[in-house]
Amino acid sequence: MSGRRGLLLGLLLGGVSRSWHQPWGRADEATRLSLYADLTRKAEAAKIDTIFLADTVTVNEKAPEPGLEPITLLSALAGLTDRIGLIGSVSTSFTEPFNVARQIASLDHLSGGRAGWNVVTSAWGEQNFGRELPDHDDRYAVAEEFTTLVERLWDSWDADAVVRDVGRRLLVDPARVRRVDWESEHFKVAGPLNVPRTPQGRPIIAQAGSSEAGRDLGARHADLVFTTGLTDVAESVRLRADLRRRAVAAGRAPDAVKVLPGVAPVVAASDAEARRIWEDSHELLDLDAARASLAGQFAGVDLSDVDLDDPVPLERLPAEDEVQGRRSRYGVMLRLVTSGELRTVRDLVLYHASAAGHWFPIGSVERVADQLQQRWEAGAADGFNFLPFYLNYPGGLEALTEGLVPELQRRGLFHTDYEHETLRANLGLAPHDAEEAIA
Amino acid sequence: MSGRRGLLLGLLLGGVSRSWHQPWGRADEATRLSLYADLTRKAEAAKIDTIFLADTVTVNEKAPEPGLEPITLLSALAGLTDRIGLIGSVSTSFTEPFNVARQIASLDHLSGGRAGWNVVTSAWGEQNFGRELPDHDDRYAVAEEFTTLVERLWDSWDADAVVRDVGRRLLVDPARVRRVDWESEHFKVAGPLNVPRTPQGRPIIAQAGSSEAGRDLGARHADLVFTTGLTDVAESVRLRADLRRRAVAAGRAPDAVKVLPGVAPVVAASDAEARRIWEDSHELLDLDAARASLAGQFAGVDLSDVDLDDPVPLERLPAEDEVQGRRSRYGVMLRLVTSGELRTVRDLVLYHASAAGHWFPIGSVERVADQLQQRWEAGAADGFNFLPFYLNYPGGLEALTEGLVPELQRRGLFHTDYEHETLRANLGLAPHDAEEAIA
Repeated sequence: MSGRRGLLLGLLLGGVSRSWHQPWGRADEATRLSLYADLTRKAEAAKIDTIFLADTVTVNEKAPEPGLEPITLLSALAGLTDRIGLIGSVSTSFTEPFNVARQIASLDHLSGGRAGWNVVTSAWGEQNFGRELPDHDDRYAVAEEFTTLVERLWDSWDADAVVRDVGRRLLVDPARVRRVDWESEHFKVAGPLNVPRTPQGRPIIAQAGSSEAGRDLGARHADLVFTTGLTDVAESVRLRADLRRRAVAAGRAPDAVKVLPGVAPVVAASDAEARRIWEDSHELLDLDAARASLAGQFAGVDLSDVDLDDPVPLERLPAEDEVQGRRSRYGVMLRLVTSGELRTVRDLVLYHASAAGHWFPIGSVERVADQLQQRWEAGAADGFNFLPFYLNYPGGLEALTEGLVPELQRRGLFHTDYEHETLRANLGLAPHDAEEAIA
Repeated sequence: MSGRRGLLLGLLLGGVSRSWHQPWGRADEATRLSLYADLTRKAEAAKIDTIFLADTVTVNEKAPEPGLEPITLLSALAGLTDRIGLIGSVSTSFTEPFNVARQIASLDHLSGGRAGWNVVTSAWGEQNFGRELPDHDDRYAVAEEFTTLVERLWDSWDADAVVRDVGRRLLVDPARVRRVDWESEHFKVAGPLNVPRTPQGRPIIAQAGSSEAGRDLGARHADLVFTTGLTDVAESVRLRADLRRRAVAAGRAPDAVKVLPGVAPVVAASDAEARRIWEDSHELLDLDAARASLAGQFAGVDLSDVDLDDPVPLERLPAEDEVQGRRSRYGVMLRLVTSGELRTVRDLVLYHASAAGHWFPIGSVERVADQLQQRWEAGAADGFNFLPFYLNYPGGLEALTEGLVPELQRRGLFHTDYEHETLRANLGLAPHDAEEAIA
């Protein structure tokens, strides 16, 4: 077991452009493979289970940021890495199921079984696709059809379809490659897929929506659920228990769904040093860009007329349940504002830019490891998805990969090496065929 | 100039599964990155300008073949190669322009300026996308809109948009990133793209249709046109002249369009040896699979009821101009059948499986080099796109990369090293901005 007790770790690669105005900023490299290869190899050296690339299909016209498309970038990283998982977001609102199925299946082959698809429904972006975006619940209804169809396409080749039977003159046994003949409200696809069954049996499915519809989608299909939370541990425990209960209701094993809340830790040798880094990081942020970014992602509330040092105008903030898209992140921020933890617009902008609606423990390696361990042992998480606060200061990634992660390994919580070839196996998930048998 | 006289060489990677039943066949590797990396590196060592991946969005249900999706595969190869071009087919009938624009732009960044998009309209595959496929000319009307829109999206970031201006607090100057506000019959896209201007300025566009509509699309947009032909040199000369004339009519320089006919050479140390390889290769083919493949790609004509050694029933073959999709390849085969060069169904199947509608010179390195040189000097081609007959016998790729290509270099026809970083420059094409200025 290489000392593994089962804690899982992911790393969201992103936010590269935030520190562009610093001499050490790497925004110039935001479109270069070498940057992402460097970060991913460091994560792999620390045995982090998977990287994760978020996606957006629009440009913030006030503050455009350079970036790359996730699936092409992950494919390029497949050839430059050996064991780390490669998960990327693709929207079910702006793509075709057949295309998504074959691209992710192809990535799984290219990486030798390390691909994952984070299913997102997109709350905006319709202007680039000439269509109206359906309401939140309708988007999830589409996503449910889309995801099920993609799974069927992935299953359309049996694992033993490539028979290479010289006697029967068959490379592939046509009887082991089946049409899916899918027909539902939004999609009609004959299949089979034109890519064989993949090394993982089925690529990993991730999901991050925490609305009712999002939880149901995750419970039915996802291997990994990325959540916000951990600012309120009891709520995180309830959320994870709820997801496991829904998985069982959907005919799956409770352990088939691994819950990974986002964490943006600020760690250093001492508490004081970590605190200093946190405070310094505020100087390092491009506040204008952060403010423009917040405007696009804060329930449509534009605070550009409010002075940075004035209090957040509570009366202008909608209730959480009135919000569509990134609702749970908005909820976290709303609670931090109403509780007084974030008082001014500056506080809110800094929090948005640093932690984006997630928990940001600040302290020594030992303190933060204690906090992570406590939450994991309390059942608030199956592991953690590290967020890219680190990219905002030099040595930030190394503070995780050479500081926090080794401490988690010393405690026997996190594996000291990859034990398997595929991401599915490294995540401690049952082989796909076994899960099929349950369902 | 490293001895370059301007001849261009491409290599179509494919057909890996054809020789699966031979002990040396590599069909087991058809879904492994290592195989394609091996082939591409050999091509790069020979300084071949570009590889090219064709695409299909369906499975031949009678004889399924394992394969990968081109854009993910090219992205993986981007990180494993340095100079060779990476061109892949993507259909304008089954994808969204915004997605294609960002994936190809991303590939261009990942490869440091070596990406190309082969625009195809697809003659089949609608069953996997829940839609009717329009008629040939309507598909090209869609492709014309689609391609123009993709070009606009690629141009939506100025080359100098990333300003990194600390004084003005601007990483990107928003004034240099513009919406495209596209609205046409089939597409409505606001833009801008969410990927910056790429290293090539604009990725390479390739096109392979030789119908009237296909030629017009190529003349207006393509940097490279892949053609069939060369079995009839005079016709190839006319086709190239016609494409150049159409380019000029579209406001472009005649040299802006490079014409690369497909060639499937069988070369060896001597003519006799090459002839022996050609004849042996017939033994090596899986005739059943080749016949099934022909059935799907021969104008819908099913010859499965005809004995292999019976003559091709001419009365069942439609005229070339009645055919939709792969028309020019069908035309080549039709001419070879009517002229008596291909007499039996076996001849036709062997030709289809080996050369797929292209010219297949057979002979010593010197003889084939003579023939290529002659055609190039006659103005029949700007270069050649090698087709994967080589994968049907061991040492076939090396016969090109270590035999034919060095001979073309010795003659001063082909460059002895890549002179530039980008594919566009290596192809001898003007920088994108210069062409913009002409148009």
